[in-house]
Amino acid sequence: MQREIFLSGMGQTRFGEHWDKSLSDLMSEAIDTAITSSPCTALDIDLIIVGNMLGEIGSDQAQLGSLASSLLPHRPPAIRVESACASGSLALHTACAFLESGRAKTVLVVGAEKMTDVSPDVIAQALMGAADAEADRPSGLTFPGIFGLIASRYMYEYGLRREDLSLVSAVHHARSKENPFAQFRSEISPETVSESALVADPLRLLDCSPISDGAAACILSTEHGSTIRIAASQIAADTLSLTHRPSITTFPATKEASEKALLEARIKLSDIRFLETHDCFSIAALINLEDLGFADPGHGVDIYRRLYKRKSDAEILVNESGGLKGCGHPVAATGIKQVIDVAKALCKSGERFGLAHNFGGAAATCGIHILEHTHA
Amino acid sequence: MQREIFLSGMGQTRFGEHWDKSLSDLMSEAIDTAITSSPCTALDIDLIIVGNMLGEIGSDQAQLGSLASSLLPHRPPAIRVESACASGSLALHTACAFLESGRAKTVLVVGAEKMTDVSPDVIAQALMGAADAEADRPSGLTFPGIFGLIASRYMYEYGLRREDLSLVSAVHHARSKENPFAQFRSEISPETVSESALVADPLRLLDCSPISDGAAACILSTEHGSTIRIAASQIAADTLSLTHRPSITTFPATKEASEKALLEARIKLSDIRFLETHDCFSIAALINLEDLGFADPGHGVDIYRRLYKRKSDAEILVNESGGLKGCGHPVAATGIKQVIDVAKALCKSGERFGLAHNFGGAAATCGIHILEHTHA
Repeated sequence: MQREIFLSGMGQTRFGEHWDKSLSDLMSEAIDTAITSSPCTALDIDLIIVGNMLGEIGSDQAQLGSLASSLLPHRPPAIRVESACASGSLALHTACAFLESGRAKTVLVVGAEKMTDVSPDVIAQALMGAADAEADRPSGLTFPGIFGLIASRYMYEYGLRREDLSLVSAVHHARSKENPFAQFRSEISPETVSESALVADPLRLLDCSPISDGAAACILSTEHGSTIRIAASQIAADTLSLTHRPSITTFPATKEASEKALLEARIKLSDIRFLETHDCFSIAALINLEDLGFADPGHGVDIYRRLYKRKSDAEILVNESGGLKGCGHPVAATGIKQVIDVAKALCKSGERFGLAHNFGGAAATCGIHILEHTHA
Repeated sequence: MQREIFLSGMGQTRFGEHWDKSLSDLMSEAIDTAITSSPCTALDIDLIIVGNMLGEIGSDQAQLGSLASSLLPHRPPAIRVESACASGSLALHTACAFLESGRAKTVLVVGAEKMTDVSPDVIAQALMGAADAEADRPSGLTFPGIFGLIASRYMYEYGLRREDLSLVSAVHHARSKENPFAQFRSEISPETVSESALVADPLRLLDCSPISDGAAACILSTEHGSTIRIAASQIAADTLSLTHRPSITTFPATKEASEKALLEARIKLSDIRFLETHDCFSIAALINLEDLGFADPGHGVDIYRRLYKRKSDAEILVNESGGLKGCGHPVAATGIKQVIDVAKALCKSGERFGLAHNFGGAAATCGIHILEHTHA
């Protein structure tokens, strides 16, 4: 980062089923909250970056930059960024580039998704847009199917047991219970997860993040300071198709983006105290901990065992918000909401560094942001 | 521009109906041509920006950044930008910000669209995504309908006659006849335009740019020089919905972006010799000439009268490529292809400045690039 970029405002809607709100309503609510929370006025915003994946299919709406711009009195320039479930982090990354270029001083980044106005079948097919339409889709797979294959292979390679995998969602629900913005605010036991309906063997319903409506917004600024700065913003890509990868139990894009982010922030992994990671399916959380370097391959579940017991010596606090499983996953809002949750955790705890890890599809795109609490 | 940005490579497919090529095939062809035309190798590319509007609906494909990245051996980070028919210019603008930030030194920008794999009805509905789904779509309008209303109002305000409007497409076809990448390579008379099938009164079939497949790619670099530099890159937004605008016969986003672009390039409008402008419908070309300042309100057609007669004293050369009507309009490819055509015209003529003007929907987003031939 050449210029210091501050997180000068943030806001989100509750994630969940908002039958009474349109995509535009959700964006508007998150934007208003972010502006209210910041030292800026709407007129200070000189660029908007919108993250959104499903506007066309869920709401018949493209050109969402202009839609967001229309919500502000001075209609600033606006760009929509899409990278499936990584749309949020890529929108933040794009905003950082504009701030560093000097073309903008204060950027509103908003991620929004309206997924419940069409049937779950339509959404499942639309989410398959995050896979390769030529190489993957003809197999008939859906994303639960893709991550089911990943989970099967992982269990085969590392001997992970079904009851251990169930710890992941149990931990996330225990955390989301405390989060007023979360879609699910009830605890579930690992046994309940294991006994829930089979979706794509070995994944069960409670291994899967839900279909959600929601929006989240951040104001990033080089001019309006705050106690939270963006210490690193990095992205990486992998092959879109799973069929072109040597392994499906590790995601190289996560490794590449996180290595670059640690270099950019000039810190070690052990400096990170809070992690929000992309648990679109329970198995993903385990792989992510390994790819990020918090656990050796096959040992991600050890961290969840400690988190489940709330052991105070847990080396890293993971998805204190409740993660995608507990909070809900309005896809493009997630990457921005993760940054908000890391910022909140840093402010509340006084800890210095946290990391938000967001990916698209089966990690064909990864976006990582490291936040620093400058008064820590 | 803080760092000099050069157009170091460019390539495009022919625009038209490519029944035998997928979205990925089209992207690949344009990318390969751009790399071959440049002093760079694929490995020099450290970021890809993809412009695309219709991937989800036309090809079941989202996350196009990763799709493009998968086409290169080293899978660089990649971002997809969408702003309806302005997706191409917004992708270029985003690339400029990354180059100016220093985060990238060489960026591949590719715009691609595959519109003929689904029925025209589906595409017409998908293109309506560029309008406001809540405020405009319920009226039943399509984009020909929107521009039909605009043309009706323009005729009422300025007394434009049907036979004069027909000059626009006649001029574009006369130019595209000479362009090997154009979808239509036959001349049409103004009478043929006036007598073509009515689509949305007063617009007729030959007033409308077609549905097209195609891709265009540019390599922008701060490191690999060329004789063409980006002298300005600017964007602006307007209300997404037409119903919120005081007038529909002028597009403020064009005015705002072009004023900022002239300031950035530090030139006068009269320094511009070549213009590629967004003639999605014939009426748009006239409004654009007025909004850009080349003609007074109601007098855009005077320029087309002179262009039709190929008068050598025509003050500005407009759409020498054939424009959207003659070349075809694979929506996100258009903004990038316009820049390529301006660059070609500057190189061929030895003139110094040209301007590419691209908009989305009814100019709810506008992107403008001014190119300078540095050896002119």
